[in-house]
Amino acid sequence: MADSAAAVAAAAKPVPLLKDELDIVIPTIRNLDFLEMWRPFFEPYHLIIVQDGDPSKIIRVPDGFDYELYNRNDINKILGPKASCISFKDSACRCFGYMVSKKKYIYTIDDDCFVAKDPSGKMINALQQHIKNLLCPSTPFFFNTLYDPYTEGADFVRGYPFSLREGVPTAVSHGLWLNIPDYDAPTQLVKPLERNQRYVDAVLTIPKGTLFPMCGMNLAFDRELIGPAMYFGLMGDGQPIGRYDDMWAGWCVKVICDHLGLGVKTGLPYIWHSKASNPFVNLRKEYKGIFWQEEIIPFFQSAALPKDCTTVQKCYIELSKQVKDKLSKVDPYFDKLADAMITWIEAWDELNTPTGAATKAPNGKAK
Amino acid sequence: MADSAAAVAAAAKPVPLLKDELDIVIPTIRNLDFLEMWRPFFEPYHLIIVQDGDPSKIIRVPDGFDYELYNRNDINKILGPKASCISFKDSACRCFGYMVSKKKYIYTIDDDCFVAKDPSGKMINALQQHIKNLLCPSTPFFFNTLYDPYTEGADFVRGYPFSLREGVPTAVSHGLWLNIPDYDAPTQLVKPLERNQRYVDAVLTIPKGTLFPMCGMNLAFDRELIGPAMYFGLMGDGQPIGRYDDMWAGWCVKVICDHLGLGVKTGLPYIWHSKASNPFVNLRKEYKGIFWQEEIIPFFQSAALPKDCTTVQKCYIELSKQVKDKLSKVDPYFDKLADAMITWIEAWDELNTPTGAATKAPNGKAK
Repeated sequence: MADSAAAVAAAAKPVPLLKDELDIVIPTIRNLDFLEMWRPFFEPYHLIIVQDGDPSKIIRVPDGFDYELYNRNDINKILGPKASCISFKDSACRCFGYMVSKKKYIYTIDDDCFVAKDPSGKMINALQQHIKNLLCPSTPFFFNTLYDPYTEGADFVRGYPFSLREGVPTAVSHGLWLNIPDYDAPTQLVKPLERNQRYVDAVLTIPKGTLFPMCGMNLAFDRELIGPAMYFGLMGDGQPIGRYDDMWAGWCVKVICDHLGLGVKTGLPYIWHSKASNPFVNLRKEYKGIFWQEEIIPFFQSAALPKDCTTVQKCYIELSKQVKDKLSKVDPYFDKLADAMITWIEAWDELNTPTGAATKAPNGKAK
Repeated sequence: MADSAAAVAAAAKPVPLLKDELDIVIPTIRNLDFLEMWRPFFEPYHLIIVQDGDPSKIIRVPDGFDYELYNRNDINKILGPKASCISFKDSACRCFGYMVSKKKYIYTIDDDCFVAKDPSGKMINALQQHIKNLLCPSTPFFFNTLYDPYTEGADFVRGYPFSLREGVPTAVSHGLWLNIPDYDAPTQLVKPLERNQRYVDAVLTIPKGTLFPMCGMNLAFDRELIGPAMYFGLMGDGQPIGRYDDMWAGWCVKVICDHLGLGVKTGLPYIWHSKASNPFVNLRKEYKGIFWQEEIIPFFQSAALPKDCTTVQKCYIELSKQVKDKLSKVDPYFDKLADAMITWIEAWDELNTPTGAATKAPNGKAK
């Protein structure tokens, strides 16, 4: 129990800011209020803004923020031909920010997500909760009925094996959304007025072997542990599909975390999702995905990685081969996607070496 | 989506009482306040009280309750030599009540569990929430990040495969506890003052392939779907172990539910657990279990049932063979337990046939 007790003690300590270890990645900012509302929480951090559309449009960032900004021209310049793996005119481009960051942790958030309030009316510091989630272990091998056993006032319940109480490192912290829920287009159309008002005061580990729909709206992860698998695929301009960028990343990430013995948490923190995207536009982007996911999910549910896949990169390249083998028959798109997965890893490795780092040339403003 | 929409519509309807379809099983009542406090919620139902200790002691049941009471003499009379599978001087004897019931649903609760209040201060009708949980499908094949998708104000999120939205029948509803958490003796000793004050407003399906520590304090299940697997094992008098009755049942039940495509839910409702049992006594009862569970859990995690196990009884008998094969080397106790599992199924089948029913001779009082 010593290790579990140590983890609990760590959880009870004040949550560190991790100012120098965390970047916030935002795909475009259309809304100036967005950063103003988050200022008290985000100002200490470095922002990486990846502009999803027309590079000639100017994104204005309010004074006081430390940021770098990449538009399509920058991505092309930095990655050369490998820029083909980064989506254009789609928020999936945000994953370029994960690649270009040099920090241990990433928090990514959409610009229509605002600060939520907890049931007592207090503004929720989402980032702080994500940091807490990432710094505490996960428990993927056995379910704890009182949820996160490392949180204050909780523990492992009777019948939880002691050998599993140490947990495993947490790679992903998936946060949720009050107000507009993250529904697909058909559900949006059927339930246009539904709002999420249920504040569920829990963080839990998604068990090993279970897939989940990972939403990129309010998501944090440990770049060192899982970064190279956080590829948001080929979406938007020139692609037959949209709104599956985060889902794709989530399936890959979960299979790899399960293989490598890493944890994925979901639950707190909530953000306030302010506006529903257009369900008609969404339906056009999604309809192939809705059909395809019926085959993609069984594929990922049965995907097995060989023992010699000991790094995220090796796992991801192996997964890309399996995608090519098994999903190309669903649609030629998956053949292209499998190639892009390889390109992504090549680009990641290029940028994430001492020499690669020198090729970066961001536009931005340091405080 | 038609089926998912139908399930949601069903969930929004008033919860039926199921007065003639549900029995409440209580292992002994030491505390008269217990039934008085639950009177508004329990009075419509039939109670089955299974006295765990000395049969000469009189259990007083307040007026107005419809009940039947079984003590050790009754159990011996009804089951004959097969009574050996029912624990004595341990609350594990409650499973005799599951066997003797003729109803579709069972709710079981301990006599130190009182009515809890929700965050708004309202008394929680635990039974109503359990009925809701049991009547709504479960979703064991894919995780829904907004928890129970059938509850009001929630649904399946983006990326949830449509083919899985119908769900599967729910066999078990595992409720939680405010105030005294269900900790093992070592954790009780280390954290004597810890109280569970976190009201988590969620119900969730435990994913397929994931085991959990099932607590019998506040538990409901569908007898027709899973009853024969709800055996609480050999505990207490003459046995080397205690406090693993519900755990044992939970492991068996989960493996069988996963095999048969049935769902297990955990979360709401909460009861108020009034008093912590003595940690020193608990340690004596538990210490072998704490050691053994390190081997039992991997055993259940890897247990596979053949395709021809199409009923709960067949699954359970197959599981008893695997227990004998694989766990007897841990301790001779498991050899005895495997035999008792068979006896339990024989007794269950005997009592749950038209002729078997005639052999019952309860003590009790019908309204």
